[in-house]
Amino acid sequence: MVQNTLKDTFKNSNYKLAGHGERNIHVLKEAFKSIDGDLESDNYGEGAVIQEFEEKMAATLGKEEAVFFPSGTMAQQIALRIWCDEKGLRKVAYHPLSHIEIHEEDGLKELHKIETVLLAEKNRVIELEDVLRIEEPIASILLELPQREIGGQLPSFETLEQISKHCQEHGIKLHLDGARLLEVLPYYQKSAAEVCALFDSVYISFYKGVGGIAGAVLAGDKEFIKHSKVWKRRYGGDLISLYPYILSADYYYRQRADKMELYYEAAKELAGFYNACHGISTLPLEPVSNMFHVHFHQAKELVEPILTEVQQQTGIGLTSYLKEIDENSCSFEVSLGDLYETVPRELLEKVFKQLDALMKQRFSSI
Amino acid sequence: MVQNTLKDTFKNSNYKLAGHGERNIHVLKEAFKSIDGDLESDNYGEGAVIQEFEEKMAATLGKEEAVFFPSGTMAQQIALRIWCDEKGLRKVAYHPLSHIEIHEEDGLKELHKIETVLLAEKNRVIELEDVLRIEEPIASILLELPQREIGGQLPSFETLEQISKHCQEHGIKLHLDGARLLEVLPYYQKSAAEVCALFDSVYISFYKGVGGIAGAVLAGDKEFIKHSKVWKRRYGGDLISLYPYILSADYYYRQRADKMELYYEAAKELAGFYNACHGISTLPLEPVSNMFHVHFHQAKELVEPILTEVQQQTGIGLTSYLKEIDENSCSFEVSLGDLYETVPRELLEKVFKQLDALMKQRFSSI
Repeated sequence: MVQNTLKDTFKNSNYKLAGHGERNIHVLKEAFKSIDGDLESDNYGEGAVIQEFEEKMAATLGKEEAVFFPSGTMAQQIALRIWCDEKGLRKVAYHPLSHIEIHEEDGLKELHKIETVLLAEKNRVIELEDVLRIEEPIASILLELPQREIGGQLPSFETLEQISKHCQEHGIKLHLDGARLLEVLPYYQKSAAEVCALFDSVYISFYKGVGGIAGAVLAGDKEFIKHSKVWKRRYGGDLISLYPYILSADYYYRQRADKMELYYEAAKELAGFYNACHGISTLPLEPVSNMFHVHFHQAKELVEPILTEVQQQTGIGLTSYLKEIDENSCSFEVSLGDLYETVPRELLEKVFKQLDALMKQRFSSI
Repeated sequence: MVQNTLKDTFKNSNYKLAGHGERNIHVLKEAFKSIDGDLESDNYGEGAVIQEFEEKMAATLGKEEAVFFPSGTMAQQIALRIWCDEKGLRKVAYHPLSHIEIHEEDGLKELHKIETVLLAEKNRVIELEDVLRIEEPIASILLELPQREIGGQLPSFETLEQISKHCQEHGIKLHLDGARLLEVLPYYQKSAAEVCALFDSVYISFYKGVGGIAGAVLAGDKEFIKHSKVWKRRYGGDLISLYPYILSADYYYRQRADKMELYYEAAKELAGFYNACHGISTLPLEPVSNMFHVHFHQAKELVEPILTEVQQQTGIGLTSYLKEIDENSCSFEVSLGDLYETVPRELLEKVFKQLDALMKQRFSSI
């Protein structure tokens, strides 16, 4: 008999606790269903389709202008390069687990020769003290809200205000990696514009909490956006047509921007279910956005059969993968979306009862 | 009364002589109509959707591997950078009117510090002599087939073979800007693979003759493609989902790859109509692909009312714009596509009869 894998049992489950659903072609079809075919494509950054969405996002983020990018990687490298050029200094600071540092094949360094200062330890967010401790001159600081690689943690809003004030006083441009900006607004109880007001430039993504196909927006003042567009052309990001991403971003933004509070509440509840299980804890313990990480204090190869069994027997999908942290621990990421509220209450209780029982049975000595 | 513009009369014309039709949302809807919504998205360069198309294109171009890019700008800068790194020399050569030189805001220089040697005069294609005349060491030569900015001209196939042989003997990597590669195959009477065999790396586009939404493929040997994927990530071109471009590229490729001969024959015929008109000539005089430029030996402000009048009276669209060359000449570009064969024969003759008559009437002293 072929052994079912964690991935298979997740894929074949009747209900999934996280996300908005599968990333398949329906996502595009659904977004374009009600769009008039006669609508003209954008054309190398010009035209109503792109300009109207950029204006809408600039207003939402409280910035003078905004520009649509195919990716956040491109948008953020460009933002930091512009701030470096403005100061005539190729040095920036960010968290050791920022996207730029670990997921971009060193694009910032290879393409721009920008040096980096890593702020804070890997397992916590950047605090004011980390910023005050920087000894060398830097052009810009990038803050990621929430800090994804550590489960989506956040500094307090007061800390953000203090860092912002310090940067302003010291001629350091503050850039927001707001890939999941909308997702943190319910925790801060602030509008997007209120958070962005603390930053000189902001990037947001449309395929995380929003659940679009791909794409990003970079926002800032007029001069900054003028330079961004030149760099976008240099990078080959100024496509003849970006509308497949723009129109789907707009569609899902309209569907989901107001549901972030719902996802946040769901995340807190779901984290509670995990934390009630033997040998499992979430990071953060109480989520501050729609996301968190689920940690097991056991080896991956011991945990994987348990999760597989639970998924197979209950038809409830918890995760498609497990990431080994070290030989005695593993984890997976959860981002709450539209699917959570579709799961029947009694099944939700059943799956965690079973998970807890299996964890206790296998690891009763802990 | 509001004066009709060239652009308006073109837009409102019943038939258009060039192109495949409007670049609107129908282009996407048409391509996705028959695609199963359950098909999974590509995922950061992985998955059947992207891999199958890359394999198909590698086979078509006769290269070991291929990688799909959001844009040719990104693909080509990366190709040249890889060849420069391989040789440890940041210098390449290309035509003074190549896309890299005039349409990319100096991305190659700004992002890679690559120096350039410009080959040939602006008004002609690169010949073997231009290559032999290069005195300094260079890592790579980029050839654009056809040379778009001069109406889509081509060197002979023998010249290509000689340049290729020279480059191979001198350790210079030859890169093909094949944005319109498919479009020149009928003239050369060669397969794509036969042309590409002369080059170390090749880029082709999916929104010119193919008429897709956007996107490009870069092809070469395994090692080259391995490096390309790293650079694609660095540029922010490794999107979570590129399927809107890939699936539409594949759809329109299947529709049109075999129609390039038809477009080429149509281009020759249409150029003949223009050349028979008073004060008008095409560049090249006889097209060698589906494209050519139409030149008027009069000032733009004198020609524009004539074209506007012809479009308004006949309902046939010739062009939406005129580009001023100098105070005594102007031009526009024509790329033949699906629309040409939809134009009734008698209207075609009528429009050029009228154009010729108006040109004679206004410029009879020439």
